Amino acid sequence: MVDSAWNTWFAEREDEHLAELFDFLRIPSVSALPSHRNDVRRAAGWVADRLRRAGVPDVQLLETGGHPLVLGYWSVDPAKPTAMIYAHYDVQPPDPLDLWESPPFEPEIRDGRIYARGAGDDKAGLLTTILAVEALAARDGQPPINLVFFFEGEEEISSPSVAPFIRENRDTINADFVISADGMMLDEHTPALTVSTKGIAGCEIILTTAATDMHSGLYGGSVRNAAQAMAVLVASFHDPSGRVAVDGFYNQVNDPTDREREELDRVPFDADRYFGAVGAGQLWGEPGFYPLERLWLRPTLDVNGLWSGFQGAGSKTVTPAEARVKITCRLVPEQQPADILDRLEDHVRAHCPSGASLQFLRRDGSALPYAIDRDHPALLAAEDTLRSLFDKDPAVIRIGGTIPIAQDFKQELGADLIFFAWSLPDCNAHAPNEWYRLQDFRTGAVATCEYLSRLGRLPENAF
Amino acid sequence: MVDSAWNTWFAEREDEHLAELFDFLRIPSVSALPSHRNDVRRAAGWVADRLRRAGVPDVQLLETGGHPLVLGYWSVDPAKPTAMIYAHYDVQPPDPLDLWESPPFEPEIRDGRIYARGAGDDKAGLLTTILAVEALAARDGQPPINLVFFFEGEEEISSPSVAPFIRENRDTINADFVISADGMMLDEHTPALTVSTKGIAGCEIILTTAATDMHSGLYGGSVRNAAQAMAVLVASFHDPSGRVAVDGFYNQVNDPTDREREELDRVPFDADRYFGAVGAGQLWGEPGFYPLERLWLRPTLDVNGLWSGFQGAGSKTVTPAEARVKITCRLVPEQQPADILDRLEDHVRAHCPSGASLQFLRRDGSALPYAIDRDHPALLAAEDTLRSLFDKDPAVIRIGGTIPIAQDFKQELGADLIFFAWSLPDCNAHAPNEWYRLQDFRTGAVATCEYLSRLGRLPENAF
Repeated sequence: MVDSAWNTWFAEREDEHLAELFDFLRIPSVSALPSHRNDVRRAAGWVADRLRRAGVPDVQLLETGGHPLVLGYWSVDPAKPTAMIYAHYDVQPPDPLDLWESPPFEPEIRDGRIYARGAGDDKAGLLTTILAVEALAARDGQPPINLVFFFEGEEEISSPSVAPFIRENRDTINADFVISADGMMLDEHTPALTVSTKGIAGCEIILTTAATDMHSGLYGGSVRNAAQAMAVLVASFHDPSGRVAVDGFYNQVNDPTDREREELDRVPFDADRYFGAVGAGQLWGEPGFYPLERLWLRPTLDVNGLWSGFQGAGSKTVTPAEARVKITCRLVPEQQPADILDRLEDHVRAHCPSGASLQFLRRDGSALPYAIDRDHPALLAAEDTLRSLFDKDPAVIRIGGTIPIAQDFKQELGADLIFFAWSLPDCNAHAPNEWYRLQDFRTGAVATCEYLSRLGRLPENAF
Repeated sequence: MVDSAWNTWFAEREDEHLAELFDFLRIPSVSALPSHRNDVRRAAGWVADRLRRAGVPDVQLLETGGHPLVLGYWSVDPAKPTAMIYAHYDVQPPDPLDLWESPPFEPEIRDGRIYARGAGDDKAGLLTTILAVEALAARDGQPPINLVFFFEGEEEISSPSVAPFIRENRDTINADFVISADGMMLDEHTPALTVSTKGIAGCEIILTTAATDMHSGLYGGSVRNAAQAMAVLVASFHDPSGRVAVDGFYNQVNDPTDREREELDRVPFDADRYFGAVGAGQLWGEPGFYPLERLWLRPTLDVNGLWSGFQGAGSKTVTPAEARVKITCRLVPEQQPADILDRLEDHVRAHCPSGASLQFLRRDGSALPYAIDRDHPALLAAEDTLRSLFDKDPAVIRIGGTIPIAQDFKQELGADLIFFAWSLPDCNAHAPNEWYRLQDFRTGAVATCEYLSRLGRLPENAF
């Protein structure tokens, strides 16, 4: 599929590059585990060294409150755009170890796949960007645009240092846009252009109907049962059709444009396979929208947890005095987490069953939804690159989950983020037997060379 | 209040009788704990010996699959009625020990109360019946009616041996009615006539919407959330007014009679104090009925437990695939547990949210409601006895909880059960610092003498 002069370059160096990738994968840079703190630092050092060897003139290993950041600056021409290249060198814990067919930190190739923790998320992707820049520099002496490499070691622990670091260094870290090497294709035949991610807002609600759980023979049917009161409240969040019944919930939500609907229609989405994978027997949701529209374009309200009273074996004849529910809403542009929580709290207070008192606790970890302008020149350049290399239109996709870092860059630098990556949805990221397709290790490097070259040909005033 | 010739009799022997009660209380006959198995047996032996010393001619200690039964037969005249006297000699575990002001098995009198595990439930009550019969026999050579003592050692573990034993020995254990020494007064000034107990029927419902919990960013809002589906189902059990909305739930329920309503009106029930004790801020329930009517005369449906999804600290953005609820219904005459579970299952299947599959699991431990005919001659005799001794009408009360043994005797022997007992509702039964009012140790013995004498004066064809 991918045919480019760069193919030959990377084919000739494949053994050498794979050996490097294996070295990188052997470092157990598990950011969540204090016992791996030095391994994370070792991985940061490995990345910094590799950037230097690729010719990046200014490479810095920067301390944060947590794991180090590795930054690399290669400025070539003030008239050219500046792209930040983002990836992460940390990995998820490998547990449960006994489910791995080969040890997680001893990479192994089987059936055209590289198996190792971090193969798909995100070490192959990170190394790919360095190899591409090294190749461009080998040919032309320098990359076609100005570059800032921004490699973090805390992605798997929610990137606590990223936003503060950017805020404090806004003047030195300048970028017109961000290219993220942490992302996915739609499937092995279909490159993807990701144009939005959802935001999130969460809360916990506690209903209390008495000071203590009660004997149902002494109080049942005479005081509010907290579990029953909570059921009534939770049932009020959606109307029977599946639409969220919280007043104003959809106020800021834009209807899908014709272009969005057309692009969604063209996504080769196999709903039977997608929902069948989790054994969901029947689709359900907001009426008037297809499943992909619900997943990608419409906001949702989900109960993540609900509990009250006795959960043990057998029977305990108690009338519960307290019930709790955890809720998160997935948000789309232009919804604001704080506004949605205000509306949800208004709803909960208006619908609180009589005889129950209420606590509404807002949860940390809210995040804005993110969407890139569909005509952003760096996005269009990515689209053109993928179309020419794969000889087909990339799928224009969205992410129903939340990627806070996209908004971090947008908020702090005003830079949009373009996902340009090659992992596959079933690559076992965060699970045993994580893998990355061997073929995509080359595909990604070739595509990145083509993409950066194309960006270098954009007119001076493109950004 | 209680004035009777028997007063003098028991006053003269109070020290001796108290010493006996203390001996009995010192035996830690905890039926639930295997380590106390021999203590339970020792208590059975103590009871059997005491019956023999009281003059009961035929006393048997009978093995069961569990703890022994102690039976005593004293037949005086085939033309007289036969009363079974029921009580239990086992006690609840004493934990938590550190909350006791004096050791649970070292009885102590403080402020007119006897403190010990089993004092109120049910050792003083049991001994009271033996002392009364002993007194009657001392005066008249024999009791005024035929008696069967039936003392069990498994009441605190749900009496598993009682119903089978009665069924197998139906021919030898003949009784016209049962007098239970395990019961309560309404308060320290008000003797009580208990005329009904509720039945019970339970189930557990499992809703499943997928094979596994799902990432809410990948599936939320597109498949049924099991927690939300369960909330809709649970909310359907009651209409907004508080009436059970299960079709046919009230079909077998009789409206309160004028007499029942009048007797309820006369019960000195302090709703503020009763509901205030558990911190219930507001009453709630079936419209058209007073709180006591809801508690005593109306059937109820209670959620005892409800759970789904993530309950830990913080946030987990999961769309739950499974939700569970435990339910018990408290039943009144003429409701049948199996019929109510049929109707509940019909309701659940009819209201099961689309996209959810359903398991309806019937729980063991169903029990029929019990009510005695308000004009049962042994009940009227108890009422007359209490009225004459206390110089006031006893409160006609009901029990919102379930006492399966009442129906065991009714079903197996056709014998109604009359509660005739002196514990108080706040006596810490099943809790630390259990107590029994010293004064009631004499009150109960005197009242039992009067009651049995009155039963002896009933006409031959009374039963």
